[in-house]
Parts: sequence; structure tokens; C-alpha cells
Amino acid sequence: MSFRSASRLEQVEPGLWRGEIQSDWDILGNANGGYLLAIAARARVLASGRRDPVTVTGHFLRPVRPGPIMVDTEVVKAGRRFATVRSSMRSVDGERLLEVLGSYGDLDLVDAPERVDAIPPDLPPVDDCIPVEPTETFPPPFMAQVSMRLHPEDAGFAMGAKSGIPRIRRWFKWRSGEALDTLGMIVAADAFPPTIFNADLPVAWAPTLELTTHLRERPRPDSWLRCAFTTRFITNGYMEEDGELWDEADRLIAQSRQLALLPRG
Amino acid sequence: MSFRSASRLEQVEPGLWRGEIQSDWDILGNANGGYLLAIAARARVLASGRRDPVTVTGHFLRPVRPGPIMVDTEVVKAGRRFATVRSSMRSVDGERLLEVLGSYGDLDLVDAPERVDAIPPDLPPVDDCIPVEPTETFPPPFMAQVSMRLHPEDAGFAMGAKSGIPRIRRWFKWRSGEALDTLGMIVAADAFPPTIFNADLPVAWAPTLELTTHLRERPRPDSWLRCAFTTRFITNGYMEEDGELWDEADRLIAQSRQLALLPRG
Repeated sequence: MSFRSASRLEQVEPGLWRGEIQSDWDILGNANGGYLLAIAARARVLASGRRDPVTVTGHFLRPVRPGPIMVDTEVVKAGRRFATVRSSMRSVDGERLLEVLGSYGDLDLVDAPERVDAIPPDLPPVDDCIPVEPTETFPPPFMAQVSMRLHPEDAGFAMGAKSGIPRIRRWFKWRSGEALDTLGMIVAADAFPPTIFNADLPVAWAPTLELTTHLRERPRPDSWLRCAFTTRFITNGYMEEDGELWDEADRLIAQSRQLALLPRG
Repeated sequence: MSFRSASRLEQVEPGLWRGEIQSDWDILGNANGGYLLAIAARARVLASGRRDPVTVTGHFLRPVRPGPIMVDTEVVKAGRRFATVRSSMRSVDGERLLEVLGSYGDLDLVDAPERVDAIPPDLPPVDDCIPVEPTETFPPPFMAQVSMRLHPEDAGFAMGAKSGIPRIRRWFKWRSGEALDTLGMIVAADAFPPTIFNADLPVAWAPTLELTTHLRERPRPDSWLRCAFTTRFITNGYMEEDGELWDEADRLIAQSRQLALLPRG
């Protein structure tokens, strides 16, 4: 199923939308966080009439299983350049699942001073990287939605050979061949596998408390995304995961940062 | 005036607070963004009964002048480890000024696996750095609230000698001698001067659209903060500013990232 179909929303009344969390977009039974956040962002794009989610922050309140959900939206401010919208995703029973705040605008290229002190993530060509294929359990069904190619140095965790560096570098594309838009970028910013898989620590999973994505321009629709996710600080029961997502034109398309939780001793 | 006094709030009714944006906490007439966000965070600490703003995101809707403001809060979820709260800061006329989403908890030190792939920001000792003293205009009155010492290599912009690297490294402390708490950290994460002052670009100021801070542990109350703020991507009319704030015990206390706007050509 395409991302467009899997994140479809129907308007119930002004500011209220109904959707369906699809099965096969999950990791160990729970919907992928980027997928949830992208659905909430789609509601806000619809509510604001703006095309691109420039900066979106989600706080994840509970694990979410497949099934129907509601998203309510409130346009906090509709300005000339941005609309700021807050929204809640709820179960049909009214239980809050995800709380989101974002500003929406238009990422057409503009003429402004530029300066970049970075190079694209270090990745061998797509064909020299390691594809990740979905299974019923691990790797998760979610991997059927995306084409992913891992840096060979970062791919050993599945066979018990962690790199020791909490970092994942990978190529990303929709498996359906669907064009990548700025909503899809939010999924790309939180796709499996997490950096913690490569850390030499007795930690199997680190649930996301909060995820913020900054979209800087629209990706080339048919481009592979060249991504690096890095964790520099695992301290006091928390870790950040910083993402950089570039397209094949060697342009930064998005940055992401999430705060994830470690099991407490 | 201490930070505690300058960010004081009175409860008007459940979930509604009244405060006062103080003069002399401004930069060119507008209140410092971190100061505003810290006031909104104080309302949420009070509303949630949790002590520490673990992750806080603010979207800045309008410049804010000194004067009375209202903050309303809604506890979205009160869980075991975190309370998630959203809030709006408004003028007394009801105009929205700042929209905030955050999760609050307790940053007592816990026993959990640690790994740090970073060293504290490169700064000479406090006494070898350059103090910034307030004036009526520039440097701004806000600098009377904080003691700041700039890295000598990053301090030339005031005399027209930009370093050419959009980076500011500095020591930070309250000038009043007041103990630094986790709310004060939000101010420290957005204190003047901005990185853009050191870029060789025809840009004088870049207003903040969004600022997220992650607090990782409580700072030593009497410690200088050792901070670095860096911009790596100035593209398509946007720039990020990434902050790292450490204390004198060489522990990471906070990370911040903001998305700021460049004038459009």
C-alpha cells in the first residue's frame, strides 16, 4: 500500500479528521512513529492549506496499534509565510495517542544567502549497500513499505556484530516507487533501525518520547535519500538521535532529532 | 531582577496563569525568546506538578514587548514518568504570542548505561574569555541578566571582525548569582549573540521560528555553563542553530536546536 493511501484522511467536520492506522506499518506490533507523525502532519496540511510541514514536533503518548484513529486540528495562527497548527491523534475511544505542534509553509526554492559546513553522509553506492527485507517479526513488516540499503559497516547488528558506534547510515526510498514528498520525509526521519542497535550496551529498544523534524526543501521525487542517524549522548536514561537526510542532488532536505528513553536501572 | 522574579506567575484559575514580561530582558525591544519559553515552561511545571522540563518546543508567533501576559495550560497526559502539557502565551488582548508543547518529568540522576561520543566545547578558561556588557542598545539590555564570556575567536563580530564561521562558544551564568535550575537552562539555550553574527553573509538577524530544548540532567547550581552554538546549514531561507550546554563537571546538561528564518531575496 502506498504511503499516500496508508496516510489518507477523511474530514468529519471542520478541524476533525478520521484515518486508519494500517497493519504492516508496524515495528513489533506498534505503528512506526514517523508514520503516525506524518498522518498527523497530513491533517495539519489539510487544515492549514499550506503544502509543507516545515517544522513538526510530536510527543508520543502511547504505543499505537492498527485501527481507526481521529485527528483534531487547531490553527493557532495563519500568517503570511507560515501557519502554526496543533493537533491531537486519538483512538476512537478518545484516548490520546500523539500530540503535535508544527508550522507549515511553502518550501519552493527561494533566493537567499547560502552556506553549508557539511558533506553528505558517507555511504557507498546504493547497490553496494545491504538491503533490508521484511519478515513477520524481525526485520519488521514496516520494511515492506520502504526500500532501505544499509551501510555495510552499520548492518552487522542483525547477526550479532554491532559496530560499537550508535550510528545508522542508509539509503531510503518508497518501495512502491511512489514519489517522495515532504510528508513522506517525516517517515524517512524515523524509520527503522534505531542507532541503539549498534551500541555495545545492554539495551534492546529505546522508545521515542519526542521527535522534531525540520524540512528545508522538497526532495527530488525520484531520488534515493542519503541518510545518517547518530547518537552522541547516552546519559541519565536518555539518548538523542540526530538525523540528516540528503537527496541525490547533494542537498540537505531535512534534519531530525528525537529524544528516546532507556530502560531505567 | 532575578530570573525567578522575572518569570514569576500567578494562578488566575485552574490552567490559567498571569505573568509580566519584564523590560531589560529584551533584545532590540523584543523579549528574548528563551526567556519567553522559560516562562511558558514554568506554567507547565506548575500545572503538571513535575519539576523538570525534559523536552520543550516553542513556536514563536509574534515579537513580544514588555507587559502583562497570560499563559493557559492543558495537561494532555499525566503518566508515571512524564506529564505532557501544551500551552499558549497570549497578550491580555488575547493575541497569541507563543505556542508550546512539552513533556515534564524528574531529572534526578538514574542508574542507566552511558556512552558519550563528544568532548565539552572548546573554550579557554572563563577569565581568558571576553565579557559582554549591556548597553541601552547594543549589546542589548538582556545582557544585564546574564554573565557571559565569549571565546576570543568568536567575539570579533562586534568590531566588524566576523570569524567567518557561524559559531558562538561561550560561558554562561546568571549575573545575579542565582542558582541555575532546569528552567533557567531554557534561557541559556537561546541567549544572545546568534551564530549568524559570525557568518560572512549579508544577514543582520534571523528570527526564531521554532526552538526545542532537551534537558538531560540538572546543572550544578553554581556552575558556569560551557556552551557551543553552531550552524551548519544555511539553505533556502532557513538555518538551524544547534546548542550544546555542559556544566563544569563536564556533563552534558542540555541540547537545543532552533530553526531560524533568513530574509528572503
